Amino acid sequence: MITGKTRVWSILADPIGHVKTPQEINALCAAEGIDGVMVPMQVHPENLATVVAGLKGIESLGGFVVTVPHKTKIVALCDRLLGDAGRIGAVNVVRREADGTLTGAILDGLGFVEGLRSEGIEPRGRNACLLGAGGAGAAIAFALAEAGVARLTIVNRSHGKAEDLAARVALAYPDVPVAAGAPETASRDLIVNATSLGLKPEDPLPLGDTAFHAGQVVADAIMDPVETRLLAAARAAGARVHPGLPMLRQQIRLMAEHLGALPGAARDA
Amino acid sequence: MITGKTRVWSILADPIGHVKTPQEINALCAAEGIDGVMVPMQVHPENLATVVAGLKGIESLGGFVVTVPHKTKIVALCDRLLGDAGRIGAVNVVRREADGTLTGAILDGLGFVEGLRSEGIEPRGRNACLLGAGGAGAAIAFALAEAGVARLTIVNRSHGKAEDLAARVALAYPDVPVAAGAPETASRDLIVNATSLGLKPEDPLPLGDTAFHAGQVVADAIMDPVETRLLAAARAAGARVHPGLPMLRQQIRLMAEHLGALPGAARDA
Repeated sequence: MITGKTRVWSILADPIGHVKTPQEINALCAAEGIDGVMVPMQVHPENLATVVAGLKGIESLGGFVVTVPHKTKIVALCDRLLGDAGRIGAVNVVRREADGTLTGAILDGLGFVEGLRSEGIEPRGRNACLLGAGGAGAAIAFALAEAGVARLTIVNRSHGKAEDLAARVALAYPDVPVAAGAPETASRDLIVNATSLGLKPEDPLPLGDTAFHAGQVVADAIMDPVETRLLAAARAAGARVHPGLPMLRQQIRLMAEHLGALPGAARDA
Repeated sequence: MITGKTRVWSILADPIGHVKTPQEINALCAAEGIDGVMVPMQVHPENLATVVAGLKGIESLGGFVVTVPHKTKIVALCDRLLGDAGRIGAVNVVRREADGTLTGAILDGLGFVEGLRSEGIEPRGRNACLLGAGGAGAAIAFALAEAGVARLTIVNRSHGKAEDLAARVALAYPDVPVAAGAPETASRDLIVNATSLGLKPEDPLPLGDTAFHAGQVVADAIMDPVETRLLAAARAAGARVHPGLPMLRQQIRLMAEHLGALPGAARDA
């Protein structure tokens, strides 16, 4: 039951009706016996700065999750950033500290990596290929490099965007060979789709080279459908497939930690 | 279950831990099948204006309840006031309109009058005596005048404060004879305690003249204890007594209406 002592978190989005994070966080709180609640807040982009200034003044607010279209604009409104959020240029969860300052992090990529690990797949040492250099791609690229892949190739329709992302990742993780390139599917231990191709049934595959084989992992950041055409093709060829849902589950847990709902917060995301 | 479509309200207070309104409003929502939730927001007085500016930008926020210590400072932050809120100089519930403007009302007095009516006691036409000219007293004085008491006498330790309140009520309700004065208990149809005397067991009665009798109503705005020493004395003398709890219950319903949770909103409080 919500009382005057209940910790409050929110999610900022526009539109808001489709968000699923409050359900997930509130279910986690119920399961763990945490006296906290997450509520939706629809905020138009032009009001984001004013709303965030207001949220800083709410002592009982533990923080907030940030999603479309606020993930880049929120960066400048945080008082500090953890991990690669500044380099990625995006934040998706903000903790309100006791003094009212805001600590931002981006957990998309970390959630993906933890999702792999939750299924027993360790990215460290793998020859990885990432499809997509947009928002999700950037977060996953930094997280794969941080996880210590042996090599990271970024494939993107606009090669320049892949090169730019590769350069930024290489600067942050000089020990990891990162480059823009081609799928070279047969040579990879890990292939990750971070494009939106696969959301719709009629979408083409996010790569042309489909030399999937046993012994490699093919992962998709898309959660719906659970099995994209990419995963179906990889499975048919004997590859191990990894859907998007574990990323969401792990990210919920990481968010709860960052927001102070679960112990393990203040982890440098 | 809270989803992205859930309407959100809050209560602003400092401290916050003791508030009971979220429990009451959320129980009402559950009982009436309303997809809405009220959450606590602790706000220090110096942050009130910034927080309220932020709340105006949250499209999914239906409004907020305001309590100690913000009830007077919030008045200037509202875009419009309903009923006697401006004359009382206090607001305890604020509706956020679709355009982000804020409509404030004070429902303490109305809640008291509706509480009387919910127990079959109509204040109209009564010779009423109000004990106390503080915040609660002012709200109840205006509401009793608006309800059409035949006469209203305001009793206060500081006579000047009672005179000031009586003058303000008389200006708003010129048809109702209102004056500062003495209890004259024997002559009253309705006696209302709006002082804080009675909260503590060792408190003296809020009036010296205890000529209570059958046929009159003695009411107390104090909710805890349920039966104050005043009510016990009046009951012993044969008077009908009216405790503070119906005021709270009616006010919760009026708040829910003002916040748009229940039909009947936009009522000119």
